[in-house]
Amino acid sequence: MVSSFLMVGQSNMAGRGYLSDVKQIYDDKIKMLVNGRWQAMTEPINFDRPTSGIGLAASFAGAWRLKNEQEEIGLIPCADGGTSLDNWAVDGVLFENAVFQAKLALRTSRLDGILWHQGENDSFGGLSALYCDKLSIIVDAFRSALKVLDIPFITGGLGNFLGAGRYGKYFNEYNQVNDALLKFSETKPNCYFVTANGLTANEDGLHFDAVSQRRFGIRYFESYFTRKNILAPLDFENELIGIIQDRPLTKKEQGALFEIEFARGRMSLGDLEEKLNCLT
Amino acid sequence: MVSSFLMVGQSNMAGRGYLSDVKQIYDDKIKMLVNGRWQAMTEPINFDRPTSGIGLAASFAGAWRLKNEQEEIGLIPCADGGTSLDNWAVDGVLFENAVFQAKLALRTSRLDGILWHQGENDSFGGLSALYCDKLSIIVDAFRSALKVLDIPFITGGLGNFLGAGRYGKYFNEYNQVNDALLKFSETKPNCYFVTANGLTANEDGLHFDAVSQRRFGIRYFESYFTRKNILAPLDFENELIGIIQDRPLTKKEQGALFEIEFARGRMSLGDLEEKLNCLT
Repeated sequence: MVSSFLMVGQSNMAGRGYLSDVKQIYDDKIKMLVNGRWQAMTEPINFDRPTSGIGLAASFAGAWRLKNEQEEIGLIPCADGGTSLDNWAVDGVLFENAVFQAKLALRTSRLDGILWHQGENDSFGGLSALYCDKLSIIVDAFRSALKVLDIPFITGGLGNFLGAGRYGKYFNEYNQVNDALLKFSETKPNCYFVTANGLTANEDGLHFDAVSQRRFGIRYFESYFTRKNILAPLDFENELIGIIQDRPLTKKEQGALFEIEFARGRMSLGDLEEKLNCLT
Repeated sequence: MVSSFLMVGQSNMAGRGYLSDVKQIYDDKIKMLVNGRWQAMTEPINFDRPTSGIGLAASFAGAWRLKNEQEEIGLIPCADGGTSLDNWAVDGVLFENAVFQAKLALRTSRLDGILWHQGENDSFGGLSALYCDKLSIIVDAFRSALKVLDIPFITGGLGNFLGAGRYGKYFNEYNQVNDALLKFSETKPNCYFVTANGLTANEDGLHFDAVSQRRFGIRYFESYFTRKNILAPLDFENELIGIIQDRPLTKKEQGALFEIEFARGRMSLGDLEEKLNCLT
């Protein structure tokens, strides 16, 4: 039975790290849900915008796999860039779509966690004061709708770079949102907070870069695995990322990646057949 | 009110044409549904696989816009590569997901058509003999579930290249599927058939190339607009494609494309700001 995780929130959950900045993570025991069906995960996982790229879910899944060598994990991508908590309100399209996708996934998996990153679009205009209560309602509704009342719900902090970047003036309450996320995790059962300390941004000063997303995913998994808040960077982040990204591919996985390159027009038919022959 | 169209079928509806082979179509009155919300369309529209690329829906929408200059069109991408009619059976995940997405779209649009391209995975093992009846059940179920009993349902033929390509031996009934699609369109109210004659494939001999997908979309729109089968290539395909692709962008659209390039890391912040300044 696939162990599945729902991805919800805004752009930094969907992922905006540049694909070219990190080695890819490919493991045919890591799946993603597309049109209600599981397929081998490739990045971008959560294609909510043409700018979608590396998010935290791939290294989260890679870390999960190191602890579950024979098992499959499935990611359910439902995050949407630029969305506020009000956009995520119960009965809105984002919430209903996420519940629906999770229910499709539940036909062939066991939902084991919800991964949340959101808050930039509640970091202004006094919205941060409402954050904890609004999020609490949404979490209760997810747990109730999916009949998983005790499911771990992992949240992550907003980047400390937010105040300085191109959009900094819009996000002048991001520290208060971080405080609210921590308070939320301390008061709500089975909810956890993962710090973004030490993580860096793309040139936009808004989106975690690809390497930071890899590190964030390790922290999210550590929080999930230990059922604890992660309040400081972990000293084994880079080591784990290396192990996950450099995992030797099986012949089947190598063949699947060759087929993708061919289908994208980046490899000739002759080269494909030669490479596939070498694998057998 | 947005005029929306549901995209269903397998890979050639999702689109596998190479992005680099054609000029992009960008028009902020052409939308696509993502997570239940409308956003300006960019290609790939139907990101069902890492190999997703140019499909027929973009030029379909462009042709629609030439006839509806003040109106908005919305595309609802639900096609999934490699799927058979049995995979599309009523109550399966593909069907249910497509109905659900269309219902989300219906909150803010009027569903005006269903675009279907599928059949490669029913082109072997005697499955072609069942094609017409199976598709008829699926169409009835879509129309009933969405309460649009007379909605136009546009189908397209399988490529004549299928028998010769790398996978040709698997698709030895593709001519029979084309016959079934034509018979279906002749017997089912408000269902139409669009020929794939003259269209060509990627090197895989399986997927329509990008230019062919542009042409196919023009044919699909002509069928939709005239409520007729299109049994031969249209002599104005290339002309219309040129008009659609070369449509002058508004300053707002130019700015949106610059922002995308910047967010992808393909333009520096300095260059972005300079280009945005030039637009104002």
